[in-house]
Amino acid sequence: MRYARVSVGGRAVWGRVGEADVELLSESPIDGRPDVIGTVPRSTAVWLPPVVPPVFYAVGYNYPRHIAHAKAATPERPEIGYRANNALTGHLKPIVKPAEVEGRFEAEPELVAVIGRTLRHATPEEARAAVFGWTIGNDISARAWQHQDRTFWRSKNSDTFKPMGPWIETDVDALAQTTTLRVNGEVHSEFATGDMVFDPFDHIVEITRHLTLHPGDVLWMGAESTCQLEPGDTVEVEISGIGVLSNPVQLEGNRA
Amino acid sequence: MRYARVSVGGRAVWGRVGEADVELLSESPIDGRPDVIGTVPRSTAVWLPPVVPPVFYAVGYNYPRHIAHAKAATPERPEIGYRANNALTGHLKPIVKPAEVEGRFEAEPELVAVIGRTLRHATPEEARAAVFGWTIGNDISARAWQHQDRTFWRSKNSDTFKPMGPWIETDVDALAQTTTLRVNGEVHSEFATGDMVFDPFDHIVEITRHLTLHPGDVLWMGAESTCQLEPGDTVEVEISGIGVLSNPVQLEGNRA
Repeated sequence: MRYARVSVGGRAVWGRVGEADVELLSESPIDGRPDVIGTVPRSTAVWLPPVVPPVFYAVGYNYPRHIAHAKAATPERPEIGYRANNALTGHLKPIVKPAEVEGRFEAEPELVAVIGRTLRHATPEEARAAVFGWTIGNDISARAWQHQDRTFWRSKNSDTFKPMGPWIETDVDALAQTTTLRVNGEVHSEFATGDMVFDPFDHIVEITRHLTLHPGDVLWMGAESTCQLEPGDTVEVEISGIGVLSNPVQLEGNRA
Repeated sequence: MRYARVSVGGRAVWGRVGEADVELLSESPIDGRPDVIGTVPRSTAVWLPPVVPPVFYAVGYNYPRHIAHAKAATPERPEIGYRANNALTGHLKPIVKPAEVEGRFEAEPELVAVIGRTLRHATPEEARAAVFGWTIGNDISARAWQHQDRTFWRSKNSDTFKPMGPWIETDVDALAQTTTLRVNGEVHSEFATGDMVFDPFDHIVEITRHLTLHPGDVLWMGAESTCQLEPGDTVEVEISGIGVLSNPVQLEGNRA
């Protein structure tokens, strides 16, 4: 099943995504039992981030080739960082490059696990059962700020720097898929989605030793490759079996 | 006015705190226009974190004496990091020290600004007008983990490491107050709440150059001093004109 959030009359509404239509739902399918309350044509749907997480977790270095490229140390255990909800935006919405950003402005294509249960001290089996579904994230990063600042606040969490979507796919073996990064329709890179140092379930087991995960929390799983973005570009992250997250890039103050 | 969130029959309900009673409210006073829907005696109120923020911002080094003590560099501009909602707990709730924590386990008494408006590119005047009110935070920190880990995930965001409360005070000149840290009733330290390198309004102006603040977002403003906590202790953070945030410390697996 594919679940999304769409904007209807300025309001965020959950939806179940079909071939031609999005069935509108009365409440979240993650921790509710929604009824169908309407329908919008899929072609006119205005996509929002498919969930606004209570906590927005993000893994750093997690793909061997990315770690080798960055000359970083391979993590010895799963660790986790944070991103911020203000930065979330939906499928087809613009990524706005701030006017004062200099240097590299990059896309990072990521698998996202959406948590479906309250979870503490999870076993590997409980970790698997706790994932409600999977979506796609693009961890936009302004590298000069990343190096200048004490934290990732501006470099990774400025408004629109975290496109997520288009929907949550509940029926897919996410780690058996292929991630493809395209700019203006051309393939920049392609990698095995599951080729991770520690997979989502390893992370869930480790982090729930110390903290409680809640329904709707998201876990961004890191990227193998990155690429430069320029205003006017359209960047697409595809994960086979899930979908395509597409966003145009605009310069702040402009409309592309 | 003092606003809180209390647990009523297992449900989180907003309240307006009076001398003897807490008036229960129909919705958030931050972005709603609540009606009074009931009353509970203040003496039996079960205090929750007074807000669950969309984004949980925290300032690092921000008091000259703390910076000098840590031999850190004085920040040249306001910067911001993040904490996680899973770690929030309320007034009088236990701070649980994980069994495997070794080394220093410390309290950091902090002023917290609660944002009341949607805000981007704020002027200093808009920043002042955007603060709904003020509460108190205790930024519990496990120092060995803080040094071992790539991020603050375990060291500052394990469950119960972020007591906040008891309520939001809307009518106080927060920067003119005194912060007092007490352990088991004895004063450990006392400092001028407003003796900051950059105050909350400086931070709001700077961060809204790049991102949007939303109603309910919180901004923890850093601490001047810290102190060691042991299981069995009770730690109190008082900010004059706001209130006292009190929490017992328990060892994981025990009930103090």
